[in-house]
Amino acid sequence: MQIESAYIVGAGKEDADMEEQFLWMDKRMDARQGVREECGVFGAFDVEGHDVAPLVYYGLMALQHRGQEACGIAVSDTAGPRDAIFRKKDLGLVSEVLQDAAAGEMHGNLAVGHVRYSTTGASTRENAQPLVLHYLKGALALAHNGNLVNTNALRDELAYSGAIFQTTTDSELIAYLIARERVRTGSIEAAAAAAAKKLKGGFSLVIKSPRKLIAMRDPLGLKPLCIGKTGSCYVAASESCALDAVGAEMIRDVLPGEILTITAEGIHSDRTLLQKKHAKCVFEWIYFARLDSCIDGISVLEARRRAGRFLARVNKAEADLVTGVPDSGLAAAEGYALESGLPFGLAFHKNSYIGRTFIRPSQEARSSGVRMKLSVLKPAVAGKRLVLVDDSIVRGTTMKNLIRMLRTAGAKEVHVRISAPPFLYPCYYGTDVPTEKQLIASSHSEEEIRLMLGADSLAYLDVKHLPEMAGTDEICAACFLGTYPTELPEV
Amino acid sequence: MQIESAYIVGAGKEDADMEEQFLWMDKRMDARQGVREECGVFGAFDVEGHDVAPLVYYGLMALQHRGQEACGIAVSDTAGPRDAIFRKKDLGLVSEVLQDAAAGEMHGNLAVGHVRYSTTGASTRENAQPLVLHYLKGALALAHNGNLVNTNALRDELAYSGAIFQTTTDSELIAYLIARERVRTGSIEAAAAAAAKKLKGGFSLVIKSPRKLIAMRDPLGLKPLCIGKTGSCYVAASESCALDAVGAEMIRDVLPGEILTITAEGIHSDRTLLQKKHAKCVFEWIYFARLDSCIDGISVLEARRRAGRFLARVNKAEADLVTGVPDSGLAAAEGYALESGLPFGLAFHKNSYIGRTFIRPSQEARSSGVRMKLSVLKPAVAGKRLVLVDDSIVRGTTMKNLIRMLRTAGAKEVHVRISAPPFLYPCYYGTDVPTEKQLIASSHSEEEIRLMLGADSLAYLDVKHLPEMAGTDEICAACFLGTYPTELPEV
Amino acid sequence: MQIESAYIVGAGKEDADMEEQFLWMDKRMDARQGVREECGVFGAFDVEGHDVAPLVYYGLMALQHRGQEACGIAVSDTAGPRDAIFRKKDLGLVSEVLQDAAAGEMHGNLAVGHVRYSTTGASTRENAQPLVLHYLKGALALAHNGNLVNTNALRDELAYSGAIFQTTTDSELIAYLIARERVRTGSIEAAAAAAAKKLKGGFSLVIKSPRKLIAMRDPLGLKPLCIGKTGSCYVAASESCALDAVGAEMIRDVLPGEILTITAEGIHSDRTLLQKKHAKCVFEWIYFARLDSCIDGISVLEARRRAGRFLARVNKAEADLVTGVPDSGLAAAEGYALESGLPFGLAFHKNSYIGRTFIRPSQEARSSGVRMKLSVLKPAVAGKRLVLVDDSIVRGTTMKNLIRMLRTAGAKEVHVRISAPPFLYPCYYGTDVPTEKQLIASSHSEEEIRLMLGADSLAYLDVKHLPEMAGTDEICAACFLGTYPTELPEV
Amino acid sequence: MQIESAYIVGAGKEDADMEEQFLWMDKRMDARQGVREECGVFGAFDVEGHDVAPLVYYGLMALQHRGQEACGIAVSDTAGPRDAIFRKKDLGLVSEVLQDAAAGEMHGNLAVGHVRYSTTGASTRENAQPLVLHYLKGALALAHNGNLVNTNALRDELAYSGAIFQTTTDSELIAYLIARERVRTGSIEAAAAAAAKKLKGGFSLVIKSPRKLIAMRDPLGLKPLCIGKTGSCYVAASESCALDAVGAEMIRDVLPGEILTITAEGIHSDRTLLQKKHAKCVFEWIYFARLDSCIDGISVLEARRRAGRFLARVNKAEADLVTGVPDSGLAAAEGYALESGLPFGLAFHKNSYIGRTFIRPSQEARSSGVRMKLSVLKPAVAGKRLVLVDDSIVRGTTMKNLIRMLRTAGAKEVHVRISAPPFLYPCYYGTDVPTEKQLIASSHSEEEIRLMLGADSLAYLDVKHLPEMAGTDEICAACFLGTYPTELPEV
Repeated sequence: MQIESAYIVGAGKEDADMEEQFLWMDKRMDARQGVREECGVFGAFDVEGHDVAPLVYYGLMALQHRGQEACGIAVSDTAGPRDAIFRKKDLGLVSEVLQDAAAGEMHGNLAVGHVRYSTTGASTRENAQPLVLHYLKGALALAHNGNLVNTNALRDELAYSGAIFQTTTDSELIAYLIARERVRTGSIEAAAAAAAKKLKGGFSLVIKSPRKLIAMRDPLGLKPLCIGKTGSCYVAASESCALDAVGAEMIRDVLPGEILTITAEGIHSDRTLLQKKHAKCVFEWIYFARLDSCIDGISVLEARRRAGRFLARVNKAEADLVTGVPDSGLAAAEGYALESGLPFGLAFHKNSYIGRTFIRPSQEARSSGVRMKLSVLKPAVAGKRLVLVDDSIVRGTTMKNLIRMLRTAGAKEVHVRISAPPFLYPCYYGTDVPTEKQLIASSHSEEEIRLMLGADSLAYLDVKHLPEMAGTDEICAACFLGTYPTELPEV
Repeated sequence: MQIESAYIVGAGKEDADMEEQFLWMDKRMDARQGVREECGVFGAFDVEGHDVAPLVYYGLMALQHRGQEACGIAVSDTAGPRDAIFRKKDLGLVSEVLQDAAAGEMHGNLAVGHVRYSTTGASTRENAQPLVLHYLKGALALAHNGNLVNTNALRDELAYSGAIFQTTTDSELIAYLIARERVRTGSIEAAAAAAAKKLKGGFSLVIKSPRKLIAMRDPLGLKPLCIGKTGSCYVAASESCALDAVGAEMIRDVLPGEILTITAEGIHSDRTLLQKKHAKCVFEWIYFARLDSCIDGISVLEARRRAGRFLARVNKAEADLVTGVPDSGLAAAEGYALESGLPFGLAFHKNSYIGRTFIRPSQEARSSGVRMKLSVLKPAVAGKRLVLVDDSIVRGTTMKNLIRMLRTAGAKEVHVRISAPPFLYPCYYGTDVPTEKQLIASSHSEEEIRLMLGADSLAYLDVKHLPEMAGTDEICAACFLGTYPTELPEV
Repeated sequence: MQIESAYIVGAGKEDADMEEQFLWMDKRMDARQGVREECGVFGAFDVEGHDVAPLVYYGLMALQHRGQEACGIAVSDTAGPRDAIFRKKDLGLVSEVLQDAAAGEMHGNLAVGHVRYSTTGASTRENAQPLVLHYLKGALALAHNGNLVNTNALRDELAYSGAIFQTTTDSELIAYLIARERVRTGSIEAAAAAAAKKLKGGFSLVIKSPRKLIAMRDPLGLKPLCIGKTGSCYVAASESCALDAVGAEMIRDVLPGEILTITAEGIHSDRTLLQKKHAKCVFEWIYFARLDSCIDGISVLEARRRAGRFLARVNKAEADLVTGVPDSGLAAAEGYALESGLPFGLAFHKNSYIGRTFIRPSQEARSSGVRMKLSVLKPAVAGKRLVLVDDSIVRGTTMKNLIRMLRTAGAKEVHVRISAPPFLYPCYYGTDVPTEKQLIASSHSEEEIRLMLGADSLAYLDVKHLPEMAGTDEICAACFLGTYPTELPEV
Repeated sequence: MQIESAYIVGAGKEDADMEEQFLWMDKRMDARQGVREECGVFGAFDVEGHDVAPLVYYGLMALQHRGQEACGIAVSDTAGPRDAIFRKKDLGLVSEVLQDAAAGEMHGNLAVGHVRYSTTGASTRENAQPLVLHYLKGALALAHNGNLVNTNALRDELAYSGAIFQTTTDSELIAYLIARERVRTGSIEAAAAAAAKKLKGGFSLVIKSPRKLIAMRDPLGLKPLCIGKTGSCYVAASESCALDAVGAEMIRDVLPGEILTITAEGIHSDRTLLQKKHAKCVFEWIYFARLDSCIDGISVLEARRRAGRFLARVNKAEADLVTGVPDSGLAAAEGYALESGLPFGLAFHKNSYIGRTFIRPSQEARSSGVRMKLSVLKPAVAGKRLVLVDDSIVRGTTMKNLIRMLRTAGAKEVHVRISAPPFLYPCYYGTDVPTEKQLIASSHSEEEIRLMLGADSLAYLDVKHLPEMAGTDEICAACFLGTYPTELPEV
């Protein structure tokens, strides 16, 4: 799935200097084209006062797969003035934008960070996070992963009382709600809880006030969030891999609906929003989370291996070698191999120097472009019957080219296995899934797709196996089934 | 006066990437160190729908002397959606930042632009203007020149009702006030008028709503603003030189307190805030405005020549040549020469390649630095008695070095004449005057200063001549006299 | 082996702006510290006149693993003037530097390209290739991979006849020799042949004259070179993977000592320098060449798998899983698994976003740095006895950290297998092997190293298996054995 | 004259990354279109070992008017190894490119520097100077101002003996000649003298060998060069203004044909090439040199004033005010005023923020572009009869626009006076004068030009006054007269 994006010219940065500010009121007209973002959040609070910016840099680096478009960090000192805060954010990778943070030039023991990916053209500096704002009680910084479904209602309500908006992000709405509640309530955590009650949709938030770090998760648990500790420093992160990266011990996943407040005295948990119904995004295990993460106690690696095992059990092919499309299909391929008893091995070399700035010389050279990114290891496949595993088929172009390359290299058969069901429905909670028009699955039968790809056989993971794959039935599989755990955005 | 700034390492841009967000509440503690800005504003509305961005680029280029730190432009189309707006802004010069605007890549017939100079370290991208925001009625863009004196009160009032602030600018406060009033009132101009009533201090504003261009000026007239027309395009600008630059005929200066609303139908004037007392910043004529501008009907060139004439009349020196420090002292020097009958001529060569990125190799090389920027034309001064005119003496270092250079080149006498009174008091209205500590005049007598400079004689313009110099007695001369036309900022 | 380099701060580019030009005469004093380079070369000649720059861009992209420091391309048209040539070169990756070539903005049907990696600090723009020069017969461009051992003698000879040098590269010497011979001889290929006779050491060269493309290889065959054709375009490349990348059919490897001249009429082979003794760099198969290349008819993948098989045959460990350090150890690990019958699987996740600009926050964080690049897939290794394969151990730091990470994740045993013998001697032919001081193997016994690493067992590939591994006994294994196929550089 | 160039989009830098290497052999075909360069050179040798790079930075800054396209510096230590040398050079201004030099990060007590302007599109990094090369005796660096007329013969001679050329500059030829002579002769100064004998045309050279600084000037004295001393540091520079800028006392002008060798022991003068016939470029006094320089003992300011006096004497106009086009016409205007007794004053404001990156929004906006750069001071000219002085008329467009602007502002009469004769012939010695096609004077009578400009009268300086203007009759006025002091380049 990651391959198509490699063709996109990387510019981004330049284009975005021309900051287009879209019409939010008109967004109601086309909610499905709205700003759907995948993001990663990270927060750190060193209760003994040590600088945390290098740690956040590490943590965001480990979350970079959740968003490569923009990133940022906001830092302050809990012993400093309530409204002093330093922020660095820009379009670009963590390693490009946040070198100051890594180099120890940003001081303070309390910070939040963010990585962001936007699927629309509206990738602006303004929309980069964390959002930093000054309000009655000092400076506040928010990093947000997810999408609300009641954005329009919230925005109208605020606008009619005179609010002004400088970004097109949900995060600004959340900040407003918190600021307004803070006028009424006695603490930032109370204000956050009051604001959270008004939010519908998916949200994992790390918020820093002048003296506290707050981590909260939507009641359905759509978006992941966990906390850990390393030395005297508490950390919160979208995925456990970021805890590992900073050497932190995982404490636990934040509960769906839980509001954790971390102060110098420790962690306080507000569970008033907890509810029975959960709907954890199954896409995290299938594709989005990193292979070495555990989401809500379930290893991503093991989930993907289970997906592969189901494929082997239900749609086993006679073959000599099981392989995966690097890197997205490898874990499921291993699962397939383990279940089927067939040998697992590598069939492609991946060129790791094709960066975001890769320019595809011409339209006609598209299939050649695939060859740039992945090349076949001929001796590994020549004369072999192959099972080729990947996590998805979007337009089908890439898979078609890979199969042609394998056959050119001498593969006798290519049996394609996809470790997820076909995407058929949009996601409204902040995970980017392709729109219907892009989806080969929405307009073609499996057999038609197989013929188009030139595969000897084709099989998808059955939706009925998703709960077992994920290790829980508290999942949201709306993008496969079309049944949503919340109301939908008004159009 | 401009010379000292040449020593400052130009980087700025890089430093500012680390965006420091100062504590606005603490600013009360040190109002005199606050964010005092000099700025230029420009607005354009082509009623026949032609693109105006290139025009705004031209106009801002002509206002660049009012601020070299940051600039920006916001454009929309009056026939487009109410909330669609394009903005480009960044740290840097107009010619660096706004090339897209010049190149015709920003479309729309309604725009505002801004150039900005900040005297504090807090030069952040966030604070660059125009401020663009989305509110109940669509997108709004503001460009603001001036400083309010009731910032803290306004900010508190807004904060207590749940407002959040993403910049540290007065402009954001004004935007909030307008947005809140707009909820209650029937038009943007009514909202602007209601908001204006709450503002105390100096402000010239150009505001664009989805369909209208508003130009308003504070009731005292502290900051200049004028309007003109070229073809089907109305323009508003801080100075008339920007009208000339775009080939516009000047219509007139905006009246102090007047709110002009330009629509497709023409110009509407709201004069409810007009008052008798005016206090136009005399510093505009002395130093800040461009030599070819007319401010409130008074030619800057003629005002400076009058200053020189007063100096010649009151403090004539026996001399062979009248010259000025380029470029700030030349016009007054001509005035002095015309009044005294002495010949006017050039005594310095100015190196025009010493840009903002000039690095002064070492501390000891400071006086050498002066030689880099200005060098003496020896044959012009050797054996001569000189009158040397400039508009101000700040620390005195530059003037001291120039006099030494002239003597080394063979000048027999150097009589220094300053075309303004000594600065003694801070400005709270957005014009940067040096703080007391920097001012040689605040701690030394004229004779002490003359000895320090090594001049044969020294004279300043007398404050009593300021009204005649400016051609009006409706002036603010607070920086010379310490008497302010408004309440002062609370500390 | 690639991991350590990940810690190096990427700047390079900036540093190199300060172009240090080292003392070539003094280089005799320390020949082993000299400029040892790994490089990739590519040439293209479209006999029907089509532009070849995009093709060269593709080809260099596929050779990027041979050098990431600098790259360049020189293009001309065989129907154009003899001395017109366009060059683009700079420090940086192909995707960064050569976008003009990709975008079709460099025209011409004859080109050479180069990627370069230098192990010393002397990474200067001047030294980037191709070298372009104007001489008696027009413009000449050279791209060179390899290192000569008689540099000093050649340079002295040229210097004493009045030559001037603007780079510190061997390539400039070769260009001089060719230019001087061209005065005497009737053709560029004759001049190249005459020059080649004087060269001792390793060199693969692609040279473009105004009308011809020349590909030549040193008589020992130390450096690889092959040719192919796609449509009407002949191509020459360091490795076959670059032929695949441009869709070219491989014609054959260039013979050691062969000089191929490609003109509009076809290929001409000059074999006067052919000799019986060959010494192909074994390091190409072990580490340097890309997994999908064939070097002199031998598949790199299969060679590495054979290395793994030998390890399994000679030093089999009781284990549950065979894995490799990504990506350098994976192929040998597969070989080990196939031979031993143990299952092959992945044990690490590699973070592909840690680019060249990765900053290691502090010295103490070094081991943490490893965690940034590679992270353990806990469920894959917990409770398992592992065979961990890599291609080399340099300082041992990385391997030590990986083993610790595996044990922390629950691995019961870790048996390290290295698919090459220990490096003990320097290479003088242009392949970077670590200096003795850096090599853990040069000062410690295998058992000492095992203890330092904390491994349960440790084994290297035996040198006696190198010929079988490489599929030929015509190899240079000087870095393992200390016996060199040429004279050594004078010191 | 400088105004037209302001419209050129500044990019340069980017374009030049695509380094076009022109055909030097074909240059014979069009010698008049060849690479004509204006340049400035600077050399420094501190005999007590202090770093000189900051000094060179200062000196080049003062010579920036001689070339804004590229610049560079090469530094070494006379106590260091003979072949160690550091160079920094690039396209751009001194303040942009040489910040390292200014910041004290380039060490060494012996350096040469260069600023360069090329009138052709072939502005490449390669051609930037100083040229640094390694030869038999160590490292050599050259900075060269001027153009040879026997380039082709020299190049052929070198090429036929096997030389290779990596630039298209004369400087590389000179370096070759010196290197070849050095093999035969006992010292660098002897080699330089031997090489100089072969050079025909204009050249001022500063050369640094490992231990010596050499300054030499062509026997006709076409290009200026002078030497000075500050503390323990000898300096050589194209103009005296650069000596002033670094606080150096001028020692004297280098004699035409003199070769000065500066060592730790002092200055040695070789005068074997001295000859009676001199031909100093008169254009230096008229336009090229800086106003505060003395060229061969003649003050540039006084020469320009004399030009103005001649105009007043021969072509006096009845007028109220004498003014000049800033900055090129001001000095001559002062001379005109002094001679005529009419008052001198300023009539234009010059916008100093229109940098090299100025983009002219559209073709039609050209006349508007003039308004951006220069604006009229209306009160200074309204109702006045003006004498407007400039140093040249090239295409006439700018002058025409200025006159129109003056009339619009109310000027009653505009009498144009040009302080040089009309350009009619090309220069072959490295000074850029417009080609015939560009010259309005070459195809129109004075009366026709006056009508085209819309001037009330027009007069040029008479060529017969050039010697008196320049204070010497040893001048080259070939560009006005067509009589050249040397053979012409072969075509």
